[in-house]
Amino acid sequence: MLILGIDPGSLRTGWGAVLKDGPDLKAVEAGTIVCPASDALPARLARLSRGIGEVVDRLEPAAAVLESPFHGMNARSLIVLAQARGALIATLALRGLEVREFTPAEVKAAVTGNGRAGKDQVARMVRLLLAWRGECSHDASDALAVALCCAQRLRMDRLSETPAKGAKLRFRKALAVSGTP
Amino acid sequence: MLILGIDPGSLRTGWGAVLKDGPDLKAVEAGTIVCPASDALPARLARLSRGIGEVVDRLEPAAAVLESPFHGMNARSLIVLAQARGALIATLALRGLEVREFTPAEVKAAVTGNGRAGKDQVARMVRLLLAWRGECSHDASDALAVALCCAQRLRMDRLSETPAKGAKLRFRKALAVSGTP
Repeated sequence: MLILGIDPGSLRTGWGAVLKDGPDLKAVEAGTIVCPASDALPARLARLSRGIGEVVDRLEPAAAVLESPFHGMNARSLIVLAQARGALIATLALRGLEVREFTPAEVKAAVTGNGRAGKDQVARMVRLLLAWRGECSHDASDALAVALCCAQRLRMDRLSETPAKGAKLRFRKALAVSGTP
Repeated sequence: MLILGIDPGSLRTGWGAVLKDGPDLKAVEAGTIVCPASDALPARLARLSRGIGEVVDRLEPAAAVLESPFHGMNARSLIVLAQARGALIATLALRGLEVREFTPAEVKAAVTGNGRAGKDQVARMVRLLLAWRGECSHDASDALAVALCCAQRLRMDRLSETPAKGAKLRFRKALAVSGTP
């Protein structure tokens, strides 16, 4: 089961794919979609949508997960980020993917055991736990971290031990479709 | 020149197309994309994107305009609305449309002469100014109002009197690409 993690941003959106093979987790690929700050917002949203669409079409993940990092932001940043998330989520949902969200604290706790861990600590643990030697930007690391969090949640639910009836169905049953803030 | 006005919402998104033929303005078509409240946000965003995409593919407007109604909302509503806007704007920009925004006060002032006019007054003036006899939900009226506002702005700039070099180019030069909040 391939899980696509996404760390959304209107200028830099990290993505990372984690393969859950029974109890084993492994990072498969990660990258960053970079939108020039000189572009107007519509052009950036189009680029985000096109970029994540290409990743989904190529890797065909079973599910997508996003961080919901809305804490401590001013209204202006919050609106821009939420618009970027909207563009991404619509693109994922149009391709039939389940979309799930985790808070930064959930992700940090899943990856490091500490909900208040720093970015460097998260990045180190991601590389260690997923045997990842590829791109190590914070955006890509954060995306892998949220995919890892989702995979661990599935593992905790012992879903890997139930008879497989298709990854999507399992994901749907395990996590209950969320995404409504 | 056909201008598509949009009044975004995660549950109801109004849209309305206004034809600007020299100094004359006429409503061509309007409607509402309704998303069931029981759907999770990703499903609603996908429906919005698909719905507005179908409208654009059918009517082929030269430009799209949205209201930016972010005033007096709590953070939760603001995030949901911004995500809906992101899904819509990405869909429009992916189709090569210019996307422009006006504040509610600008729209009300353009339509009624009063930036603090009520919804009923806006709806009445929209029907009168655009000779509109079709759907009259507030969502559709508000969408027609923002298209009307954009068309009037173009008219004020006397752009209808400059030699035409294609509607898109005219729109781009007249309003300068915006959309970055």
